[in-house]
Amino acid sequence: MDLNERIDKVLPKVVDHLSECQNCKLGTNTKKGLNLAGQRAVWRIVDDLVSIVFPGCHGNEPVGEEGLPSFLQNKLKTIAAELADQAERAFEYQCREVYCIDCTECRDRAEDAVAYLVESLPGVQTILHEDVQAAYEGDPAAKSSMEIIMSYPGIVAIVTHRIAHLLYSKNVPLIPRIMTEYAHSKTGIDIHPGATIGSGFFIDHGTGVVIGETTVIGKRVKLYQGVTLGALSFPKDEEGNPVKGVKRHPNVEDGVTIYAEATILGDVTLGAGSEIGGNVWLTHDVPPDSSVYNTQPRPMITKKGMLGPDGHDA
Amino acid sequence: MDLNERIDKVLPKVVDHLSECQNCKLGTNTKKGLNLAGQRAVWRIVDDLVSIVFPGCHGNEPVGEEGLPSFLQNKLKTIAAELADQAERAFEYQCREVYCIDCTECRDRAEDAVAYLVESLPGVQTILHEDVQAAYEGDPAAKSSMEIIMSYPGIVAIVTHRIAHLLYSKNVPLIPRIMTEYAHSKTGIDIHPGATIGSGFFIDHGTGVVIGETTVIGKRVKLYQGVTLGALSFPKDEEGNPVKGVKRHPNVEDGVTIYAEATILGDVTLGAGSEIGGNVWLTHDVPPDSSVYNTQPRPMITKKGMLGPDGHDA
Amino acid sequence: MDLNERIDKVLPKVVDHLSECQNCKLGTNTKKGLNLAGQRAVWRIVDDLVSIVFPGCHGNEPVGEEGLPSFLQNKLKTIAAELADQAERAFEYQCREVYCIDCTECRDRAEDAVAYLVESLPGVQTILHEDVQAAYEGDPAAKSSMEIIMSYPGIVAIVTHRIAHLLYSKNVPLIPRIMTEYAHSKTGIDIHPGATIGSGFFIDHGTGVVIGETTVIGKRVKLYQGVTLGALSFPKDEEGNPVKGVKRHPNVEDGVTIYAEATILGDVTLGAGSEIGGNVWLTHDVPPDSSVYNTQPRPMITKKGMLGPDGHDA
Repeated sequence: MDLNERIDKVLPKVVDHLSECQNCKLGTNTKKGLNLAGQRAVWRIVDDLVSIVFPGCHGNEPVGEEGLPSFLQNKLKTIAAELADQAERAFEYQCREVYCIDCTECRDRAEDAVAYLVESLPGVQTILHEDVQAAYEGDPAAKSSMEIIMSYPGIVAIVTHRIAHLLYSKNVPLIPRIMTEYAHSKTGIDIHPGATIGSGFFIDHGTGVVIGETTVIGKRVKLYQGVTLGALSFPKDEEGNPVKGVKRHPNVEDGVTIYAEATILGDVTLGAGSEIGGNVWLTHDVPPDSSVYNTQPRPMITKKGMLGPDGHDA
Repeated sequence: MDLNERIDKVLPKVVDHLSECQNCKLGTNTKKGLNLAGQRAVWRIVDDLVSIVFPGCHGNEPVGEEGLPSFLQNKLKTIAAELADQAERAFEYQCREVYCIDCTECRDRAEDAVAYLVESLPGVQTILHEDVQAAYEGDPAAKSSMEIIMSYPGIVAIVTHRIAHLLYSKNVPLIPRIMTEYAHSKTGIDIHPGATIGSGFFIDHGTGVVIGETTVIGKRVKLYQGVTLGALSFPKDEEGNPVKGVKRHPNVEDGVTIYAEATILGDVTLGAGSEIGGNVWLTHDVPPDSSVYNTQPRPMITKKGMLGPDGHDA
Repeated sequence: MDLNERIDKVLPKVVDHLSECQNCKLGTNTKKGLNLAGQRAVWRIVDDLVSIVFPGCHGNEPVGEEGLPSFLQNKLKTIAAELADQAERAFEYQCREVYCIDCTECRDRAEDAVAYLVESLPGVQTILHEDVQAAYEGDPAAKSSMEIIMSYPGIVAIVTHRIAHLLYSKNVPLIPRIMTEYAHSKTGIDIHPGATIGSGFFIDHGTGVVIGETTVIGKRVKLYQGVTLGALSFPKDEEGNPVKGVKRHPNVEDGVTIYAEATILGDVTLGAGSEIGGNVWLTHDVPPDSSVYNTQPRPMITKKGMLGPDGHDA
């Protein structure tokens, strides 16, 4: 029996089983069912929005002979139409799932969110320029602003976050998180779209950074790779499910620097101007202008072979 | 002398040197030589398989007017044919390299692996639904199941692993690891295709997670970012090369939670229901229902400038 | 008022604001302005260069009927022309920004860098084969050399670094860093193009590795995930900006192994043959053949619920 015959034989049963989940709806997105835009459609919107705030930097070529105003105008009209369509479908999904059968406000809410996003883009661009400046001042390896814009992962993460946060603040379902996880995938930097982040924000290297949903970050804050601004624990309802939306992440005031792999957990406040050292584990407030450091363990140095691989006697 | 002339002058020597490696065979994949599918061909198969278990979620659009059964049937037939071709070529490669000249069983083994994969997909989908449910129950930031499926990196990692593990268990060379490293690239989560992982598995955030080849994980296990389930050391043969295939990674029993950046090394067992705290370094067994925590170092807090950056007196 | 009308109403103001930045030049790349190649154009060059040193491994298909020499010759000519164009535009950008109005040497410098790169490729390939061999000998999970080449993130990072470092050494602006950040995005391994790295280099797993600009690494060095070779601090000029180009990162001599999550900071030297344990934090020299380990904290083990989540009494 060759492969075609074998496949043909099992196919009906496999297809039946897999199709049944159209009913359970979990993870099955059909035009006549959930009718959501796919993940990649959202990614494309992100790429287009990034090309609005940093035109010609992240594609193949600079903005061409048509000139910048025409480029921006055409892009913005296309983005607005596509994003309104995506957002409407996301609101309809949420509406069906959560609170109604027939959605009368979905289109209005979608258009309102898109108009708000478009109007906010100039302000976003201004703040991003402060982010780029912060990177230039914060990293001796940065040779020019264009190097930062064209290559730094921290910029990809923050531009995506600032866009996604606008949609999050308008309660658009699904799309903001798909956007920030797209940046997470490219950078290793995981910023929840709900986080509030001030201007002049710089993440160096970035891999492993986690910034939770209810984090509030002031101006001119600098993070290194592996920093976690996370939750210490979270309340559960009677059914044992986590209660959504509770404030559970840190507040980081203006001018704070947090070095690599530091872990800050819970609804605590790092006072303005403080420095948090590498690997520090912190679950309480610190006053402004503090230096917070671990006494790093002084490592043992012996001739090779004298210690087992876990640091105890072999 | 312009660039073309300069390039033309050095080209023969460069091309000769680079071509010679057709003989050494290392990293040169020609149709008349190794004849393997390239990395991206394997990635495309992964994308297609993911669209079978979560139809319409990760592409551009929902499944269209043709309906779900037709979509699944067409996809499955295409995948089966392409993957059988890829697997056959991988078996032939291994056959030539390791144990024979002429491969009589390669096609059969490839078709057997593909048929096994297709037959297993309904079961895989059922387990993945339990994984999604575990994410929903385990993360207060998760707003809906579709948000998890469309954006969470832990889902990308586990769906890819569950597919790759099927091919690994049928001894398909090369392809399973290319698949899981594709997910590693997208998520920062490095799960070897050899690992055995039960249902209801949830990795939150995920960047930096490493799960080694001989790890065995039970049901309803939850990991956070940066967790390593690794090897403490490994035996070498007389020539100093590592012996392949030895059991050297942890066993994680049902219902265990492991917090961020914890490191568990060696063939040790974490008893059912245990909690392993953040940053814990563990190289021995723990009994069921244990809490395993470091006394976190209490960081020193001084006015800024009183300590050097390594935590000792400046 | 429908979406089109709303967008049309705000569009002129938004476009005006965003266009103004053509003057501030920050992050606006037009043909008549900066005229730089976009990020993705550089990525495409990287993909093509990787296909020169590992032909047929990372695309869809093996090198076809045209045979390896023709494939190499055509690829090399295309790459040389495109890269010379990109490099020229990058030199012109730097020239305008930093030290002149009219660039007379930009084309020459670009062609010189490209010719140097092409001539160096055979040597790069030879060293990469030693890197692959080091991975095979260093990882019990590695089944074959082709598995390493086709799937290991450490190979993606080092092949990209070795190419980018050639251009960095010829002072090509922008492009080398875009190249290595492309690899960072795919692998979680952040190697600055300025770092000097000897042959037989192997990074296992890799996510979270950071190797700074002035790092010098000898032969047969092995790193695990999360290792940082970073700066302890850096001098600033009178305006508070970091001084660029100062030697500030570690020297790692031949045959050193550095285990997961170790942090080595500053211009310190790890003597040949040394082993640095997991999680070690090191800011001073160690002599050759040292074993450097933390006494890992022995975690506390209690029955579940006896300790709070930060490891102190609940």
